[in-house]
Amino acid sequence: TSTATTLKGQPLDKGALESMLRRRMFFAPSFDIYGGVAGLYDYGPPGCALQANIIDIWRKHFVLEEDMLELDCTALTPHDVLKTSGHVDKFADWMCKDPKNGDILRADHFVEDVLEARLKGDKEARGQKVEEKEEDPKRKKKKAKGTEAVKLDDAVVKEYEEVLAQIDNYNGEQLGELIKKYDLKNPATGVQPEPPVAFNLMFQTAIGPSGNLAGYLRPETAQGQFLNFAKLLEYNAGSMPFASASIGKSYRNEIAPRGGLLRVREFLMAEIEHFVDPASNKKHDRFHEVKDIELALLDRNVQLSGQTTVTKMTIGEAVEKKIVDNETLGYFLARIHLFLKKIGIDQSKIRFRQHMGNEMAHYACDCWDAELLTSSGWVECVGCADRSAYDLTVHAKKTGAPLVVREALETPQIVEKWEPEINSKKFGPIFRKDGKTVEAAILALSQEELAKLSEELKTNGKIVIDVPGVGDGKVEVTKDLLAIEWKKHTINIREYTPNVIEPSFGIGRILYSLLEHNYWTREGDEYRGVISFPPAVAPVKVLIVPLSSKPEFAPHVRRLSQKLRSIGISSRVDDSSASIGRRYARNDELGTPFGLTIDFQTLQDSTFTLRERDSTRQVRAEEEKIVDAIKALVEGSKTWQDIESELPVFEGQEIEIRTAEN
Amino acid sequence: TSTATTLKGQPLDKGALESMLRRRMFFAPSFDIYGGVAGLYDYGPPGCALQANIIDIWRKHFVLEEDMLELDCTALTPHDVLKTSGHVDKFADWMCKDPKNGDILRADHFVEDVLEARLKGDKEARGQKVEEKEEDPKRKKKKAKGTEAVKLDDAVVKEYEEVLAQIDNYNGEQLGELIKKYDLKNPATGVQPEPPVAFNLMFQTAIGPSGNLAGYLRPETAQGQFLNFAKLLEYNAGSMPFASASIGKSYRNEIAPRGGLLRVREFLMAEIEHFVDPASNKKHDRFHEVKDIELALLDRNVQLSGQTTVTKMTIGEAVEKKIVDNETLGYFLARIHLFLKKIGIDQSKIRFRQHMGNEMAHYACDCWDAELLTSSGWVECVGCADRSAYDLTVHAKKTGAPLVVREALETPQIVEKWEPEINSKKFGPIFRKDGKTVEAAILALSQEELAKLSEELKTNGKIVIDVPGVGDGKVEVTKDLLAIEWKKHTINIREYTPNVIEPSFGIGRILYSLLEHNYWTREGDEYRGVISFPPAVAPVKVLIVPLSSKPEFAPHVRRLSQKLRSIGISSRVDDSSASIGRRYARNDELGTPFGLTIDFQTLQDSTFTLRERDSTRQVRAEEEKIVDAIKALVEGSKTWQDIESELPVFEGQEIEIRTAEN
Repeated sequence: TSTATTLKGQPLDKGALESMLRRRMFFAPSFDIYGGVAGLYDYGPPGCALQANIIDIWRKHFVLEEDMLELDCTALTPHDVLKTSGHVDKFADWMCKDPKNGDILRADHFVEDVLEARLKGDKEARGQKVEEKEEDPKRKKKKAKGTEAVKLDDAVVKEYEEVLAQIDNYNGEQLGELIKKYDLKNPATGVQPEPPVAFNLMFQTAIGPSGNLAGYLRPETAQGQFLNFAKLLEYNAGSMPFASASIGKSYRNEIAPRGGLLRVREFLMAEIEHFVDPASNKKHDRFHEVKDIELALLDRNVQLSGQTTVTKMTIGEAVEKKIVDNETLGYFLARIHLFLKKIGIDQSKIRFRQHMGNEMAHYACDCWDAELLTSSGWVECVGCADRSAYDLTVHAKKTGAPLVVREALETPQIVEKWEPEINSKKFGPIFRKDGKTVEAAILALSQEELAKLSEELKTNGKIVIDVPGVGDGKVEVTKDLLAIEWKKHTINIREYTPNVIEPSFGIGRILYSLLEHNYWTREGDEYRGVISFPPAVAPVKVLIVPLSSKPEFAPHVRRLSQKLRSIGISSRVDDSSASIGRRYARNDELGTPFGLTIDFQTLQDSTFTLRERDSTRQVRAEEEKIVDAIKALVEGSKTWQDIESELPVFEGQEIEIRTAEN
Repeated sequence: TSTATTLKGQPLDKGALESMLRRRMFFAPSFDIYGGVAGLYDYGPPGCALQANIIDIWRKHFVLEEDMLELDCTALTPHDVLKTSGHVDKFADWMCKDPKNGDILRADHFVEDVLEARLKGDKEARGQKVEEKEEDPKRKKKKAKGTEAVKLDDAVVKEYEEVLAQIDNYNGEQLGELIKKYDLKNPATGVQPEPPVAFNLMFQTAIGPSGNLAGYLRPETAQGQFLNFAKLLEYNAGSMPFASASIGKSYRNEIAPRGGLLRVREFLMAEIEHFVDPASNKKHDRFHEVKDIELALLDRNVQLSGQTTVTKMTIGEAVEKKIVDNETLGYFLARIHLFLKKIGIDQSKIRFRQHMGNEMAHYACDCWDAELLTSSGWVECVGCADRSAYDLTVHAKKTGAPLVVREALETPQIVEKWEPEINSKKFGPIFRKDGKTVEAAILALSQEELAKLSEELKTNGKIVIDVPGVGDGKVEVTKDLLAIEWKKHTINIREYTPNVIEPSFGIGRILYSLLEHNYWTREGDEYRGVISFPPAVAPVKVLIVPLSSKPEFAPHVRRLSQKLRSIGISSRVDDSSASIGRRYARNDELGTPFGLTIDFQTLQDSTFTLRERDSTRQVRAEEEKIVDAIKALVEGSKTWQDIESELPVFEGQEIEIRTAEN
């Protein structure tokens, strides 16, 4: 399934594509002249413009369309925040050390590599055709010096395949067991690596001159949004549901980054946190707009059965059948699909894969990834997680801040319940700085616990409660500090912690997939690459080409680029001495959709030719009509076919150009 | 000079402004519910939109207007790069420790604070009026518990004032001398702090799982641009001059951040590196376009004489008189001025201040700051430095990469000179990994040194050269490895290292100054704040206000916001139950320039009223005309006066609104 193809279905020559992308400075390894640093890339002018265009469309498609509240939070984050969110303890990958040469291997990729090598050897031994798989971004591959052609038992083959289908579902201990069970050895040294240990993926630093305040670079933009929840709710006049959004850099200290832009240590994310009332069954009032959109789904159960077959289904049906848990999650899956389609991702190369239990991040209760098919196989490009009330709850518990929604009830409710009552006068001076934490722990007690503790308090005059992080985690509270009583209440306000649905976009991965999906080569010449970006994402929209360097051409060039700039359309002039064919070829590689030629006839009658990149066909008309056509094409209100039907097709010079091109 | 005023010349109540900005969520301390971290701020929805608009205008004004090559480089930077650039050794502030309480003080701010307090005390003792100066962002102020009214000798007053006028010009040793000479004491403890020591301002981290690769968060975006110079030159088809540009976050671990957005530890920068041939006298071919623009200049000599008087002068005259060194530097100063004017900075609150010798960054040979007058005094918001060939030279020397321009000469030159010739075959195996460094050291030798070494080589059969970083810094080279000969050459190519002019923008500081410059309060009501953003930067352009919550109003609201969105104009609906006056007042605080009211008459004749924020005047017309008017106003092609002359002024409801407002 991973044999990649170009836009036109040709086999993808990844080497040729990558060399073209670097030559045209879409991206380049950072600090290249210093030998580079794995997992760090710079975007050059076309990559930078492409990224800006993707972000611009993202912002319009999500933020503006749904009045989301955009935030720009810092990447520097103090230790306490990420300790509470669980990242300090759990945001880790499993790594193994090779005792012989000190190599550090990512455990899951190591298991995957060795088992795949064995399966390949088995195929060879059976005389079957072996498909060369491209380098996978998930893997640190110590290139085996050649697979040994060893035939395996049929049962073993089946076992290996089942392990591989759920490779993302194993924890460190289980990966260690697999390494022992199958006696997996590092091909570079021939020895079995040490058991997997957790490696935290966050970059650490110290904030301030004393060096005492530990901090990290954020691994996601989400936490800043959660911490601002109360302010956002107020800004939104208390109205629910609503979403916040952030676009910014995040950082993950990958164990062994590979695969170019697909696994990097610093990357641009665009994240949405949609806050919803859990009592609403997570209904979404615009779900009807998307319910008929068909998605390719690969659910959890299919994967656990060792399969990877997708099912095509409308999102309406998927939610109805509970394959996708709720409307809000379903709404965003469909919206993600529409966004990917809009920027030019090949729809046949999108699938939505549900996470398996152990694979999910510590905060998630359900998660679907939009995966894109590339030369590195299916790559996670957008995650859409249901984080439930996890984050708001842990931060509220830690800080005492009320990260809740308070809603007036139409009819007041009368309830009876156990209620802790703190004697603040005495409580504060005794617990001092820990007071808030202890209070929060008391307020978080369940009704059952309160009932039991009330009894204890009466009997012993004191109770002991668990308060992680204060002293040894056990705190004694005496009855002069706390009463726990059975009380009747009239409730006028309903208070709840919202749940969060989080669509999270890795912009770099999407950008790279977009390049692969839109790349192809001209028939008969595999070195003449073209990137067929839709005009909206193309880094530059128009190439202006004066046929001659004579001074009479200059005023036309200046006027046209000024005119295009004034209507917000980016253009570039190529007045080099290269042949016109070569100039167009260069811009095909940059994905510039339109070419505006100024030729000798222009000097006589002020007409220009407009060339369409993919077909290389041209029309000829006077300036105003040509500029209007460009505007309509870039805005997407007209197609090239429309333009050809409106303006005279130009054949003459095309021959000239074709000749020059060859 | 530092008594700040509002847009309308009212005294600025900074407390009222800040509380308004926080209430409207322009920005907020990051991690607020965790107690915050000094120097870290989040931007809320209006702050975020304002920032995006400033960036958008910046990109159009600089990048698109001059075809600059935009890059997006990583913030994570390996140690070697910043060691070479000089930042590891020199990017530091001076800090003093208070031996009594362990307080860490920024040395220059400490000296400044204590001397200013003494001058204030002197004024009090002389019975003069003391002007309360607002908190200065440059200072960590241990609030003196009240200045002592002690009269000073006239000579002492003069001496203090001269010290203060050049406070930015002292190094650590000199600051230490001032502390001793004037017996300066920390007001918090009454003791003299320890002598100043350098504190490096970069955040450090480790890259990769081994922890062996030291890295920093970049303190400026510039280095990434320099390292890509060779690729950029190639992308630009070898043509000079050209500029690159980057917009991104940078990081400085400030000793004691104060002053809100004015001194933070993580901030958005927009930087241009303009590469120019030094042999061109740094002429600029568009200088004539800006030469008549008048700037307020405060040059180095005026400051060193203890004065701060600005001179108004056209940039043409300033360059001619060599007050500003060259046309390229002058061109950018003028362009910076135009940019600041365009986004709405008060022109009477801009000055350009030249750096004094010791104040300049280690890489700069000349530098002018655009400073903006705020409630914290004059604040550096844009730096415009001439970095000469410093950065390209040091990186080329360290890596051996040719960060140079090679230009074909029209007439070849014949030169004779000493020329080192390395025997690579033997050289490589002997010096191994140090080979490149040693070679670079040899190639960097001057003609005089080569002449001398040639002699030595003949006499002794070997020479010793300085190669810092290799062994003990002295390397012996024998004559079988190297020959140094007097040779005749025909030169067809001129090779040079470009100089760099760098305009560098602190977006957060500009944004904050913009807020202060455009803020004012309605006459007679100091609590009714207005921010008069020009439409182009306003976070939201149009407020849509349905006068009633009746369902008949909803379709109009939907249609209008959809229509505005489709022409790229951001709007927000306020359908709350608040009075119309209150709703407009809320949006005056957000700086929304236009209000579109849907009232009962709309239901009958589909006309709408359009309100202008500053004058609160209104016009009434049918939908299409109103939308056209909004478009023209936002694009800046028409003024409100134009609209009032075209569309019927609406008085009726204004009375109703005014009543509601009061």
